[in-house]
Amino acid sequence: MHDAREVVVLRYGHRPGRDDRMTTHVGLTARALGADRVIFPDNAGQSAETVRDITDRFGGPFAVELRDDQKAIVRDFEGVVAHLTMYGERVQDAEGEVREAVGLGGADATGGASTPRDLLVVVGGEKVPWALYERADFNVGVTNQPHSEVAGLAVFLDRLFEGAELDREWENADRRVLPEATGKTVVDAGEDSGDNADSGDNADSGDNADSGDNADSGDNADSRAGTRD
Amino acid sequence: MHDAREVVVLRYGHRPGRDDRMTTHVGLTARALGADRVIFPDNAGQSAETVRDITDRFGGPFAVELRDDQKAIVRDFEGVVAHLTMYGERVQDAEGEVREAVGLGGADATGGASTPRDLLVVVGGEKVPWALYERADFNVGVTNQPHSEVAGLAVFLDRLFEGAELDREWENADRRVLPEATGKTVVDAGEDSGDNADSGDNADSGDNADSGDNADSGDNADSRAGTRD
Repeated sequence: MHDAREVVVLRYGHRPGRDDRMTTHVGLTARALGADRVIFPDNAGQSAETVRDITDRFGGPFAVELRDDQKAIVRDFEGVVAHLTMYGERVQDAEGEVREAVGLGGADATGGASTPRDLLVVVGGEKVPWALYERADFNVGVTNQPHSEVAGLAVFLDRLFEGAELDREWENADRRVLPEATGKTVVDAGEDSGDNADSGDNADSGDNADSGDNADSGDNADSRAGTRD
Repeated sequence: MHDAREVVVLRYGHRPGRDDRMTTHVGLTARALGADRVIFPDNAGQSAETVRDITDRFGGPFAVELRDDQKAIVRDFEGVVAHLTMYGERVQDAEGEVREAVGLGGADATGGASTPRDLLVVVGGEKVPWALYERADFNVGVTNQPHSEVAGLAVFLDRLFEGAELDREWENADRRVLPEATGKTVVDAGEDSGDNADSGDNADSGDNADSGDNADSGDNADSRAGTRD
C-alpha cells in the first residue's frame, strides 16, 4: 500500500481442501487491509485463483504468488519479518517497534523518521518450523489466545497502518461498492451490477463463498424468501 | 467484556461441514477479542463444542449458544444491532456512532457519557435476509471489499473496544500462554504444559486446527523435523 515499502503476507503451510477457505481468507484479508502481495504455498492454487479473481474485479494493485520455497523466503527476506503467533509478544507492546522498524514510526502512515523497509508478515498454518520463531525479527501475538490467523492478520495490519489502509484507493476495478447505511449498491458495472452485487457465482464457489459478504449477497434472493419463513 | 453491557456476536447462517471452520473462527475471534457471548445456528454444534473446549482450557467468561431462531434474535434484540457487511458504512466513519450508541463513547473503553447498552454484532454467512439490513441500527463495512467475515469481526471489535480487549484478564483458565519475543511457553498446566502447548489433539481436529496457532503449535514437532528438508 505504501510505495516506500512493500508489505508481503506469507501464508506458511497449506493443506489442500482442508485449508482452502482459510488460505483464501488470508489472501483476501491481506489485499483488503493494505498488504501489497500475498505468497501462498504452491499447493494452494485454488485459493490463489480466487484472490486473483477478486483483484481483477475489485481492483488492485495486489499480487498473488505461489511458491514452494517458504523456508527460503523467510530466511532470505531482505527486510523485517513479523511472525504472528499466540506465543509472541503482545501486539499492543510490539506494534510501535514494528512500525519503527519498517519506517512507519511517524504520526501518520505515510512514513516516519526511520528508513522505509519491506515487511514480511508470516501467518502460520500447520508446520511452522521453530527456525521461523528464531528468524523472525518479531513474534507477535494478537492476544495470547487461540483464535484465528485471519483475525490476527486483520488486527495486525489495521494497527500497522493505523487505519490508513481503510482509505486505500483501488485501481483497475470494474466495480465498486458504495458504502451506505442501508443498501447494497455496486457501481461501474452497468447492467451487470445486479449480478455482480449478488456475486451469485461466488456464493456458489467453495472459495469465494468464504468472503462472507459475497456469500451474503449471493444468497440475498433466497434470503428475502427466507424472511417469509 | 464490559459488565455495563453485553456484546453478543451472532453468526448468521451456517452450512454444516463447509462452514465449520469459519464459524469456529468467528466464535474464537469473538471470545479472544472481547465479546461476551456468541450465538451459532443450531446446526453448528461442532463449532460450538470447539469454542467451549477452548474456553474451558484458556478461560472465560465466554458463552456459546446454539439457537434456531436467528431472525427473531435480531428482530427482538433489546439493544443496538450492528451488521457487518461490505455494503455498509465505512467502519472508520461509523465506529464513533456505534461506540456512542452503546455507551462506549468515552475516551477510554470503560464507558463514556452515554448509557451502556447491549450490542449485537451480526456476522453474515449465507442467507442474510434483507430484513437484517433494515433492522440493523448500523450496517458497517470493514472496507467495502470482499474479504473475510472473521477479519471484519476482528477489526470491528478491536476498534469498538479501542484495544482495551487486548488487556482482558481470563478467569478459570487451566493454562496461560506467556507472551515472549522468542518461545512457546504455557504456564499453570504443570507437566501437561508440553502437550497443552502442542495441543496435539487440536491440530488433529478439524475445528481446532482452525485456530492457526493451535495447528502451528500442534505441528511443532513435525516442523522441527521439517526444517531438515
